[in-house]
Amino acid sequence: MRIAERISRLGTETAFAVSAEAAAFAAKGNKVYPFHLGDMNIPTPANVVEAAEKAIRDGKTGYCPNAGVPQLREVLAADVSASRGVEYTMENVVIQPGGKPTIGKFFLALMNPGDEVLYPNPGYPIYESQIEFHGGKAVPYGLIEGEKNFELDLDAIEDRITPRTKLMVLNDLQNPTGAECTQAQFEKLAELVLKHDLYVLCDEAYFDIRYEGKSSSFAALAGMTERCVILYTFSKKFAMTGWRLGAAIGPKEIIDVIAKINVNDESCSNHFIQYGAIEGLTGDQAQAKQILAILKERRDTAVDILNSIEGVNCFRPNATFYLYPNITGAMKKKGLTDYDSMRKAYLHKTGVSVCTRLHFGRALKGEKDFYIRLAYSGIDTPEINEGLGRLKVFIEN
Amino acid sequence: MRIAERISRLGTETAFAVSAEAAAFAAKGNKVYPFHLGDMNIPTPANVVEAAEKAIRDGKTGYCPNAGVPQLREVLAADVSASRGVEYTMENVVIQPGGKPTIGKFFLALMNPGDEVLYPNPGYPIYESQIEFHGGKAVPYGLIEGEKNFELDLDAIEDRITPRTKLMVLNDLQNPTGAECTQAQFEKLAELVLKHDLYVLCDEAYFDIRYEGKSSSFAALAGMTERCVILYTFSKKFAMTGWRLGAAIGPKEIIDVIAKINVNDESCSNHFIQYGAIEGLTGDQAQAKQILAILKERRDTAVDILNSIEGVNCFRPNATFYLYPNITGAMKKKGLTDYDSMRKAYLHKTGVSVCTRLHFGRALKGEKDFYIRLAYSGIDTPEINEGLGRLKVFIEN
Repeated sequence: MRIAERISRLGTETAFAVSAEAAAFAAKGNKVYPFHLGDMNIPTPANVVEAAEKAIRDGKTGYCPNAGVPQLREVLAADVSASRGVEYTMENVVIQPGGKPTIGKFFLALMNPGDEVLYPNPGYPIYESQIEFHGGKAVPYGLIEGEKNFELDLDAIEDRITPRTKLMVLNDLQNPTGAECTQAQFEKLAELVLKHDLYVLCDEAYFDIRYEGKSSSFAALAGMTERCVILYTFSKKFAMTGWRLGAAIGPKEIIDVIAKINVNDESCSNHFIQYGAIEGLTGDQAQAKQILAILKERRDTAVDILNSIEGVNCFRPNATFYLYPNITGAMKKKGLTDYDSMRKAYLHKTGVSVCTRLHFGRALKGEKDFYIRLAYSGIDTPEINEGLGRLKVFIEN
Repeated sequence: MRIAERISRLGTETAFAVSAEAAAFAAKGNKVYPFHLGDMNIPTPANVVEAAEKAIRDGKTGYCPNAGVPQLREVLAADVSASRGVEYTMENVVIQPGGKPTIGKFFLALMNPGDEVLYPNPGYPIYESQIEFHGGKAVPYGLIEGEKNFELDLDAIEDRITPRTKLMVLNDLQNPTGAECTQAQFEKLAELVLKHDLYVLCDEAYFDIRYEGKSSSFAALAGMTERCVILYTFSKKFAMTGWRLGAAIGPKEIIDVIAKINVNDESCSNHFIQYGAIEGLTGDQAQAKQILAILKERRDTAVDILNSIEGVNCFRPNATFYLYPNITGAMKKKGLTDYDSMRKAYLHKTGVSVCTRLHFGRALKGEKDFYIRLAYSGIDTPEINEGLGRLKVFIEN
């Protein structure tokens, strides 16, 4: 077999291995509390389902345009314009089979081999993988524990910019940390982007998964709209992870290129589910609000228990459905010194299945503390209570 | 704007421009006979639709495994094993959001920059585009008019193989020509593949769109199963073009790599429609057979009228839903000397919208005759009669 050389640079989501271990443990009759994967155990709103089913009956089973159903591009442009305070039209929107495809297509459209690309670490592992797969050099920047949340290490970002730095990935409202920039931090970042002539992938997958306050988009800052491509997804807001529908939103010249990549890669996204998405954006919002209410209750339950555990410190991020507690004290207490032993001990002693810092990139120089990531999108409040209660007993005894 | 250099090598399907012209002509109140695009105007079988809708209600709205729903991989492996006479298991199958994604992923998995790749011309334009986009050298081989159908130019293939030739695209039951290899031709081709250590993308999108006889797969030849990746699609057999569902089927080592690309590109294909596909493969076949009966009637109607036109010669391929008549005589009769004038004259004088040879690659050296491509998948028999009747009057007068 003669696999292409580039495949040696292709990464993956190692969290899937955690799923497999959890499934194997459950298969032996053990109870598992699934905090490891960001899937959702909440049904898609009924009005979205009905609109998609109606579209099938209306014959929307043939191809649609490569860039997506025009009506969906229009209502999404209007929705994102209003929520971000940016003026987009349908020409700025190209529909994708999920939010994730925007990552690879952004790099294919804008990155040349050898270009350096800044990306967050800890962060979603696909950024690093796609940068290196397509011949770029992935340059990580860290996140630091602030007063009330994680923050971008802006000094580190500036330090790591070289003349070869061309692109940056910004995942504000971040997976896994929940980090959120202040406007002052956005402004400093925008200065750097202009000074060094960068283009930015704004992964806004969690923009609408927000419990307090209002989300802001980096693309709305002066001069940034022309330099940012927003990764948009229907997955979280409408509990549609398995439907695979999202979009890339940005300057027309880049969006046209991504639409041309669509022609080559998959022709178009599924036609009839785009009518479900139109209903999601324009129809009754009661069930979308209900999804947020469910998630908020889960967040508060999980954060409260985690912070009650000796040696665990957990922020309460305003957005995302992830928690990233510092468990350094809890590790010491149990005499644990590495991530793998800790994760397996938690699973096998309590049934609590989590990801760790290592599922979000290699630890950076100087990192000393230990972190786990819990997703509460796929586990109900009573199970959160029970599972984390067991974890508390295990850690404290 | 700083678009990546590789985008200059990205091609497209120029047939979409023909669609736009036809739509503009129709918008002025003119009748258009749409023979230009390979979409289908036949509903998806009701049992497939119902199974997908049931899956939504059963909560199949979250992620599924990256390689696809295990049950679908199993039944597809069984179906393809039986129809091709090859032994595949689910480990040989990775589900894709359409047939098309298999093209790009095959090259990403097996092609290194500078590798030469043989591909058919005339042929589906995405092969050449994806080869060059990902840094390969696209080397076209022609098709020649045989006695009863088009045939691969096997001598040309052998002539064009160099030490740098690593891969080949074979689209037996071909778009646009309907070409089909004999077993003897398959065997000669297999010899070349072994002699020159090639791997082959077998685009079998039309394997099940067959009216007489039985389709054969090149992957079934001795030594070829290990060297072939089959592009499979649900689009045509079950009139599911807009659902976007297909698969790559081949050696486990390659399929594992493509599944890893899935993790990076789109996580997984839409979850619930895979249950529709399971029903399509294992449930009642009445409607799938009906689709074939409809298409056969259309083929015969179209071929009969085309062959009745002075200066037009059209084969009657046993498979695909395309016709590729030689219209050299008809061009001369009307004093037409170029494709664009001819295509526009047909559209504006008769409403018949077609693609031409040029939508399937640049003409090869020595090509003298003129061809058009008609798709009969998206136009009913009465419209075929009426439209081609008008074309006959136009050409003969």
